[in-house]
Amino acid sequence: MTAQPLNIQPLLEEGRENELASLLDTLHPADVAEALSPLDMEDTIKVVSLLDVAQAAEVLVELSESSRDQVTLGLPRDKLTQMVAEMDSDDAADIVGDLNEDAAEEVLKAIGDEESEDVRRLLMYDEETAGGLMQLELVAASGSDTVAKVINDIRAVSEDLGDLGCVYVVDQARALQGEISLKDLLLAYPGQTLGQLIQKAPGLVVRVDEDQKAVAQKFRKYDVRSAPVVDSQNRLLGRITVDDIIDVVDEETDKDFYRLAGSSEEEVYTSGAWRRAGLRLPWLLFNLGGGLLTSLIIDYFESSFQKTMALVAFVPMVMSLSGAVGSQSATITVRGLATGRIASGLIFRSLGMEQKVATIMALVFGLAVTLIAGTLHEAPRLGLAVGLSIGAAVLVSAFLGAVTPLFFRAVSVDPALASGPVVTSANDVASLLIYAAIGSSVA
Amino acid sequence: MTAQPLNIQPLLEEGRENELASLLDTLHPADVAEALSPLDMEDTIKVVSLLDVAQAAEVLVELSESSRDQVTLGLPRDKLTQMVAEMDSDDAADIVGDLNEDAAEEVLKAIGDEESEDVRRLLMYDEETAGGLMQLELVAASGSDTVAKVINDIRAVSEDLGDLGCVYVVDQARALQGEISLKDLLLAYPGQTLGQLIQKAPGLVVRVDEDQKAVAQKFRKYDVRSAPVVDSQNRLLGRITVDDIIDVVDEETDKDFYRLAGSSEEEVYTSGAWRRAGLRLPWLLFNLGGGLLTSLIIDYFESSFQKTMALVAFVPMVMSLSGAVGSQSATITVRGLATGRIASGLIFRSLGMEQKVATIMALVFGLAVTLIAGTLHEAPRLGLAVGLSIGAAVLVSAFLGAVTPLFFRAVSVDPALASGPVVTSANDVASLLIYAAIGSSVA
Repeated sequence: MTAQPLNIQPLLEEGRENELASLLDTLHPADVAEALSPLDMEDTIKVVSLLDVAQAAEVLVELSESSRDQVTLGLPRDKLTQMVAEMDSDDAADIVGDLNEDAAEEVLKAIGDEESEDVRRLLMYDEETAGGLMQLELVAASGSDTVAKVINDIRAVSEDLGDLGCVYVVDQARALQGEISLKDLLLAYPGQTLGQLIQKAPGLVVRVDEDQKAVAQKFRKYDVRSAPVVDSQNRLLGRITVDDIIDVVDEETDKDFYRLAGSSEEEVYTSGAWRRAGLRLPWLLFNLGGGLLTSLIIDYFESSFQKTMALVAFVPMVMSLSGAVGSQSATITVRGLATGRIASGLIFRSLGMEQKVATIMALVFGLAVTLIAGTLHEAPRLGLAVGLSIGAAVLVSAFLGAVTPLFFRAVSVDPALASGPVVTSANDVASLLIYAAIGSSVA
Repeated sequence: MTAQPLNIQPLLEEGRENELASLLDTLHPADVAEALSPLDMEDTIKVVSLLDVAQAAEVLVELSESSRDQVTLGLPRDKLTQMVAEMDSDDAADIVGDLNEDAAEEVLKAIGDEESEDVRRLLMYDEETAGGLMQLELVAASGSDTVAKVINDIRAVSEDLGDLGCVYVVDQARALQGEISLKDLLLAYPGQTLGQLIQKAPGLVVRVDEDQKAVAQKFRKYDVRSAPVVDSQNRLLGRITVDDIIDVVDEETDKDFYRLAGSSEEEVYTSGAWRRAGLRLPWLLFNLGGGLLTSLIIDYFESSFQKTMALVAFVPMVMSLSGAVGSQSATITVRGLATGRIASGLIFRSLGMEQKVATIMALVFGLAVTLIAGTLHEAPRLGLAVGLSIGAAVLVSAFLGAVTPLFFRAVSVDPALASGPVVTSANDVASLLIYAAIGSSVA
């Protein structure tokens, strides 16, 4: 751990590369990755090439996804192959999976048969499922094995295992029978069999085709630190550890955030200005389109607006309030769905509650604006018109904000998509229409 | 694990309470908590009282914070005391910390000296620091202890420990010297001393006064499953496990989301309609205030707007586009700060990049709107005025959106506060002012 990230640039410029390499080899890979982040791609590749193979492999895994892809492509092929051979199967599969077909074949041929078969098997699973998260390195034993034998098994593969929390007990068909924590193994007698030690079923068993979001939810719910992954016949295929789950939680939260922002994915932090603008622009087209519609609405009601200019004065307030209310409802609904606080069975109850809240807010703002607009322009009738229409716009916006994510989910579209520009543009049009219609008839 | 949450209500109504209790005692506490969530508070308390003490204690820990508080207050005091005595020290401290002073004293007196001293010690730490997260249950030994002795130590406290990933090595002053994984202990020989087994420093050591957000960042960065907590003299105080960290990540993400929504905390899901509205309303006052200012701006420029009604037609589009651009910038900045993608050293670089992106977007939308408005109203001069001012409004909104969270952070205010109604209201006023000023002079 270092408090301040190491500043690599000066050492690189002064050509003190050996010094730099031996310094970086002593750091935690995550710290090296952090120190690399301000460098351009050429320098990053240069520094990764300087590291020893094991350290370089771990640093590569720690890099952000986009710079990892570029470093992978830029590294000498033989160095990359040595690094992949050092990695856990799940990390190796992530790296190889991002290569083009030829490069992937070349690396897989060079890393050794057993390792490459593992990677090939993992690459068959969808990246966003349990299969895409799991690693194959684990310890499985039979219920008739003794504790002493299992300890020897662990010893034999210890180097490849990294952290280990438990061993799995399987039958001859490799069907999962249970798990035994390392603590229980440590406290057992060498001659005891594993069958005698199994106390209860594992806290959590994951199916290989389960979506990573669902897997992350279950890890949270059951507070486990690792889970076995099985196929449809309950045969043990791999294991998922909680550190991978934290990455999934972050990834899914990122997605929800970016969709709120009307943008997408991590590239908004790592690519050039044109690309970043390109990622952010498409979402704003909803606002442009909504804006076009609102301009037509105002054209349509032009004579009323022109007659009562005070009506114009409150257009921005209507847009602002109903937009804010709508995105409040949408955000609360999206996050409620993501965390399970809005359960599938309780959707109508949740919508009903949202309408109650919206009614209260509509009354409060409607009254406040009636008084403000009426006093400001010394015209109670105008105040009433503005207040009424703001109340109605708030009511509709809250409803649209809450119902759109729920509707998206019902038709299997990511609810988070409903919380950004899509719902605000819909709100713009709906609330202006209500405002203009009520305003022009009352004022 | 159950696929569908158990429906408790019917069993309760038919008075089949014994049946219900024995059914619930076999479920995972997290499943029981889930099954309790649709019940009202009276029924929840009734069901928790039915469970056996150990199960009831675990269920209480799994409940959402607000219903946990209510259940705690509603349970018979002696049942609550028995439950607290069953809990890990960190959970016990969370429960006792939420009681009023008299009730807390009563519970602490009844749970036994050692346990209550642990809880009292934990209650001294701020809830949102490492001290507030840690538990005191751990295994610490001297470097001169043998593996056999440590295994006996573990056996003695095994029941209280829950999951255990490693043991800590400390000197006579309890200063942390290192950690040894259970895997390494399992593979060692009984006569080896711990000093011989320590290979390197722990992956992560946390200071007791560190903020929980920072601790969570480090857990992610170093991919560890537990970390020792030390005081300023490096003396071992407790340990934090990764399942507590996932809760912190969720809690902090919740906060960021609710602030984006202009709302606060979990109560928006659990309280009544009036309370929910009360939580959401204050934030919207920013929009109301901003709306008031925008109405004054329009009053001020009234003659221009009245002369060129086409200028009015694009007011909603200006508000919508600049609002969307501003909240995009704000969301990207807030999330970038939360995940460490925008590092403290790179703030100016990040702002510079944001301005480049904003310039591209301003050009694109400025041009598009110039064409649209010019064509729609067959007035190129008007089109230019609207396009120019939308371009300028987009530029300013992106800047405000990015700079406000950074400024908030610099003055130690939560950056997430800058992403919701605060920044949209500021954007409303700024962009309308720009629009009206440019529009009235050009058109």
